[in-house]
Amino acid sequence: MATFMDVHTGMTGITEDQLREAHTADRAIEGDENVRFEKAWADPEAGVVYCLSEAPSAEAVQRIHERAGHPAAEIHEVPLEV
Amino acid sequence: MATFMDVHTGMTGITEDQLREAHTADRAIEGDENVRFEKAWADPEAGVVYCLSEAPSAEAVQRIHERAGHPAAEIHEVPLEV
Repeated sequence: MATFMDVHTGMTGITEDQLREAHTADRAIEGDENVRFEKAWADPEAGVVYCLSEAPSAEAVQRIHERAGHPAAEIHEVPLEV
Repeated sequence: MATFMDVHTGMTGITEDQLREAHTADRAIEGDENVRFEKAWADPEAGVVYCLSEAPSAEAVQRIHERAGHPAAEIHEVPLEV
């Protein structure tokens, strides 16, 4: 397992409810890929969402996001944290 | 106070020690701008660092990062989180 930060763009105007719904949709199926979505942060003005997860691979993260209807623009493995 | 996610690029090959040193340099002076750096994650392969903070403004975050020698490429206020 590794830690990933993924980035969604084009989310301008996203609301707290929409962010929660998107996160809930990910969580509902994350187990299929052994992914655990930990946290998400949104900038509704710029339309950017950052999403932190534990997962076996970036591909696993993306498969969940795609099935939930919101593929990530970028997925970075972040092996270092402080 | 608000929550910010900032992004540093061009950090290819950053090590755990270098990430810790950079974070420590921010923390040493963050009080001057009433900023609190909470957490940072690095992808040494892509050279990207994500940094989460509580601060009065994006400009305050940037002033600390600049004085510490590593200005952010992007700073996003993230008023929504889940």
